Amino acid sequence: MPTAPSIHQAVQEQIEGALARVRVRFDAQLRCDLPPVQRLVNHVEHYRGKMLRPTLSLAAGLACTEPPEAGQDGHRPGLGEGHVTVAAVCEMVHMATLVHDDVLDDADTRRRGATVNRLHGNEAAVILGDYLIASAYHLCSQLDAQAAALLIGQVSMSMAAGELLQLWHRGDHSLDEPTYFEIVERKTAALVGAACRLGAWCSGADTAACRRMETFGSRVGVAFQIQDDVLDIAGREAVVGKSLGKDLEKGKLTLPLIHHLAAVTPRQRGRTLLLLEDSACGGGQRDVREALEASGSLEYARGVARSLVEQGKRELDALAESPAREFLRSLADAAVDRNH
Amino acid sequence: MPTAPSIHQAVQEQIEGALARVRVRFDAQLRCDLPPVQRLVNHVEHYRGKMLRPTLSLAAGLACTEPPEAGQDGHRPGLGEGHVTVAAVCEMVHMATLVHDDVLDDADTRRRGATVNRLHGNEAAVILGDYLIASAYHLCSQLDAQAAALLIGQVSMSMAAGELLQLWHRGDHSLDEPTYFEIVERKTAALVGAACRLGAWCSGADTAACRRMETFGSRVGVAFQIQDDVLDIAGREAVVGKSLGKDLEKGKLTLPLIHHLAAVTPRQRGRTLLLLEDSACGGGQRDVREALEASGSLEYARGVARSLVEQGKRELDALAESPAREFLRSLADAAVDRNH
Repeated sequence: MPTAPSIHQAVQEQIEGALARVRVRFDAQLRCDLPPVQRLVNHVEHYRGKMLRPTLSLAAGLACTEPPEAGQDGHRPGLGEGHVTVAAVCEMVHMATLVHDDVLDDADTRRRGATVNRLHGNEAAVILGDYLIASAYHLCSQLDAQAAALLIGQVSMSMAAGELLQLWHRGDHSLDEPTYFEIVERKTAALVGAACRLGAWCSGADTAACRRMETFGSRVGVAFQIQDDVLDIAGREAVVGKSLGKDLEKGKLTLPLIHHLAAVTPRQRGRTLLLLEDSACGGGQRDVREALEASGSLEYARGVARSLVEQGKRELDALAESPAREFLRSLADAAVDRNH
Repeated sequence: MPTAPSIHQAVQEQIEGALARVRVRFDAQLRCDLPPVQRLVNHVEHYRGKMLRPTLSLAAGLACTEPPEAGQDGHRPGLGEGHVTVAAVCEMVHMATLVHDDVLDDADTRRRGATVNRLHGNEAAVILGDYLIASAYHLCSQLDAQAAALLIGQVSMSMAAGELLQLWHRGDHSLDEPTYFEIVERKTAALVGAACRLGAWCSGADTAACRRMETFGSRVGVAFQIQDDVLDIAGREAVVGKSLGKDLEKGKLTLPLIHHLAAVTPRQRGRTLLLLEDSACGGGQRDVREALEASGSLEYARGVARSLVEQGKRELDALAESPAREFLRSLADAAVDRNH
């Protein structure tokens, strides 16, 4: 669970309890009677790290629960089976993309362990990702709620379309900010938005509240991705716990670089483009970082992420005041105030 | 559409008409506002070949439709929107696996054209497969029918599990028949069974009839896969229209080889295993074919496929006699009586 100030211990404990149920639901859904499949499933269960999407989903569910009526003092609004299911579904969709992303990025490390593709080959990783996404849909269908199924289907289409757009622009040094945001909105933000929307929906929130929670999640999702992009350039592998420098190596332009290439002199631009060529061969990443620091581009990206978090938090203003709402705010802050 | 004797022209025409609607639904569901994504989608639309699953689904739907009541003479039982949707969903799930299979098999040719992985790289093919499977679930959710969504989710899990089991046994020269059938049941037969079941279900068939149609489809699906395996060894690339010899090259033991290795003398077994080693490097495939012909193993596999088709057809006996039922029988025959 993302670290957040523990002012609201009761909410945190409630969410921790629900996350334990999410893990049980998750593992039960993936169980397979074929030992070679179960071995791979056991491996990816170790991928579970921050559980950002389930945590946001559950917190959104709590924040949208009606406060106890008078006379029901001490009644603690509950997180039902629906909340646990949608949280597990969102994490499973996310995990499927992690497994396929690691194939695309040729990554060796994830959550401080070897990736599936590293240990079992690209082929196993591709099919395991398919198994995970199929399991997510199967679990989602258990809700018997068309709105949820359509949203998860739509979001998964959007995620793949975003990835394809990113792939199309690989090595494109003239990628602009609007296209970058288009990619991130689809690839990352759509699922975080859906996680928040579905959490609210399970609490019976009305359409307007569901939409606000989705916008909140979407803004936080973009901010989270920008922070990931910053860490890929400026983070320390031992702290972040996964292979870094992969964006540069794979020719993916992210916000700090887009800003840098647009902001510097033509001469410096030429120099950075040469550094990027080195990075594509696995070298020169430290020089890229220093160039981005010098042009203030890492700071710029952090500022954009921070501003998105503030926009997201404003969507919560219409909700009744509650510890869960404050917890959502602190989760939003934690999306950018992190070094892993 | 698979070739079948045109005794039942009216049924064929009705199904051809519905298949045209399936193609429209299929293309509409995949449409994407991002040009690089739409370009890839246009490419895989050319993969549509036999349309076996939609055809079976529609024929099963017709065969399970109540006959017209007395006085309603001339009334032709219709195929509704539901039939068209489930047929498109099954074809989309199938196409997603084709795209990923071509990555796993490193195949260059499909339906006489270049594969996505060959033209656009493995990465684009992996994500495009994800886009297709997400689209299938999104389309399935439009039915608002939990039973259909659960079945499609379950079948997709089963397909991935079957593929993983197959991968696990790659290069395993002691693979036995039960494991081979376990793989084929999950990888291929489950979806063909589901296509038939969902077609029947859309016509309001009762549980027993749905189950019979599923068994019919599953038997035909296994037979179809065996025929594919036979063609991979004994077919002619120009006729089949895709890269052949891939099973041998990838160390996949299929029914003819399993039979051969169990049936021949230890000395011949040793000789064949050496040929398999050559095949893994792309050579010696003609010698393997000749060895399998000599031991009667291709004939054995064809016989098993033929017997599965007969088993499947017996499931249709409980249905009311109709041209659609006869058409289903001829589709079952066509699954094994084909050279492409």
